Amino acid sequence: MNIAIVGATGLVGSTFIKILQEENLKADNYYLFASKKSQGKIIKIFDKRYKVEALTEENLKGKKIDVAFFSAGSEVSKRFVPLFTKIGTIVIDNSSCFRMKKNVPLVVPEVNEAAISGHNGIIANPNCATIQAAVILGPLHRQYGLKRVVISTYQAVSGVGACGIEELKNPKKYSNSQVFAARIFSNTIPLIGSLTGNGYSEEENKIINETRKILDIPNLAITATCARVPVMNCHSESISIELNKNFKLSNIEKIVKNACNISVNGDIMFSCPTTVDADGKNQVFVGRLRRDYSVKNGINLWCVADNLRRGAAFNAAQIFKALIKLYNLH
Amino acid sequence: MNIAIVGATGLVGSTFIKILQEENLKADNYYLFASKKSQGKIIKIFDKRYKVEALTEENLKGKKIDVAFFSAGSEVSKRFVPLFTKIGTIVIDNSSCFRMKKNVPLVVPEVNEAAISGHNGIIANPNCATIQAAVILGPLHRQYGLKRVVISTYQAVSGVGACGIEELKNPKKYSNSQVFAARIFSNTIPLIGSLTGNGYSEEENKIINETRKILDIPNLAITATCARVPVMNCHSESISIELNKNFKLSNIEKIVKNACNISVNGDIMFSCPTTVDADGKNQVFVGRLRRDYSVKNGINLWCVADNLRRGAAFNAAQIFKALIKLYNLH
Repeated sequence: MNIAIVGATGLVGSTFIKILQEENLKADNYYLFASKKSQGKIIKIFDKRYKVEALTEENLKGKKIDVAFFSAGSEVSKRFVPLFTKIGTIVIDNSSCFRMKKNVPLVVPEVNEAAISGHNGIIANPNCATIQAAVILGPLHRQYGLKRVVISTYQAVSGVGACGIEELKNPKKYSNSQVFAARIFSNTIPLIGSLTGNGYSEEENKIINETRKILDIPNLAITATCARVPVMNCHSESISIELNKNFKLSNIEKIVKNACNISVNGDIMFSCPTTVDADGKNQVFVGRLRRDYSVKNGINLWCVADNLRRGAAFNAAQIFKALIKLYNLH
Repeated sequence: MNIAIVGATGLVGSTFIKILQEENLKADNYYLFASKKSQGKIIKIFDKRYKVEALTEENLKGKKIDVAFFSAGSEVSKRFVPLFTKIGTIVIDNSSCFRMKKNVPLVVPEVNEAAISGHNGIIANPNCATIQAAVILGPLHRQYGLKRVVISTYQAVSGVGACGIEELKNPKKYSNSQVFAARIFSNTIPLIGSLTGNGYSEEENKIINETRKILDIPNLAITATCARVPVMNCHSESISIELNKNFKLSNIEKIVKNACNISVNGDIMFSCPTTVDADGKNQVFVGRLRRDYSVKNGINLWCVADNLRRGAAFNAAQIFKALIKLYNLH
């Protein structure tokens, strides 16, 4: 089996390469693609050295690629994903380019792995902030039905890539931000992506629309407010959930604790997970679970996850594992 | 008129002294009190120099104080406020000590100034995160009635005083925090104050209970999640509001823009106020106003305010001005 990683030198791409090794997902060959400025770089995978190539039509010629992981932005995905699927590659795409397309499954394996089998060459990896909420919302919906969800996010700078980290690390150099709507050092910026006509940001629309698609609840009542905070890595979320049925809080705790790839440190009601806990981990960390007394059948909770891992590369690796199982790839 | 400032060397106390001068609130004499370690410090007010005294029963003797402003924590207020009221002083108390007491008005002058006249010697200044929300919720409630409010906060380290700023400024020295539940540098901590039995933090309970008291809606459906972010100064809040009546979004915009001491930069739907905008200002900055499509008559909005000014010292100064008017003090 040959796999390709497009955006291999980026934060998500390099995290994906790390996770492939951690999860022992070996392939016969790895093709590493990036922009022209990264070509020639050497990356070691399972003790073998691979040279990064520029992603060009020319460089694709003659290659047999079974699975490709794309994390190089929407523009690159738009242009190159079709060239890969044309030669029979199954693409796991981390960009937002194809996520809402009807014939493209949008997958958080813990929630809707079965959707993968309906793919037509592309499987979309959801937005980072969406994934960590979906991992919790999925099992709650199965048991109680979701009535309404209100999400406020606290998102790390690594979400925009290495340039975000560079700006937060060098506040004096970036008193005028190149990538954020304002200086990020010692600030909170209530805008991720651009604002759309109805006042929602692109990131907020992603959370709303992608959650509906992943959970297969097209009319789910859900709203979101997304903000960037001066945190290097890991997104936090304050989530208020109304359920359709009455519940015991201890049952909610049981569902969350038993859910796949969720980590709860001690009593979920009194656990306060922070980005320090989640950094470098693949689980979603959940705490602050409590009844929301302002509404019938309501709960509030807090969740944190490594947006590069759980919110991107690890989720893609989970999809990759599901593909291996589905097609008996080796 | 003689006024006393208890906690005169703290972040809120020194901001109060600044605002007295900015607002030209002159008194005949200023008594400055602080802890023993600050006694002897000299503070200039309106070009006259005043010496800080330790707050002791001894040092109060013989002083005639008309109005005292307390911002030295609950323990100090509990012990000393009664000694001031006994000698006829009207106390504006910034601690949480008396806020929920029945015979103590809890006042955001823009919302419930009239409550001041019912005081019995103490007027409580609300919690910082509560004030900036109340300034917006008050006028919306008057016009449309509040059905439910969901608040998630992004709170600055100055809220815990100078030690919070010291920790954020020196991450290497404070990899183990002395004042926060975890390291604050590059982190988000979903806990402000201690956790109480029902899973809510003290700060969340303050927002819930104080908002009900200020707005005089004892059974208001309101919930809150409070988090600390690595921001030096100014709290941000994501607020989801359900109103009792249908509305035009343009009317909401008008109400917010016309409200006293609220600042909106351009189109309220597309304005993204950050802590940089609010720092050093007395107004609440509001933006990101949009319909919340997940519920009937819902809106989402974002607000930011300087927690030392709008959330503490400026609010106290507004109460002080109202007292001057009420008693014709000079």
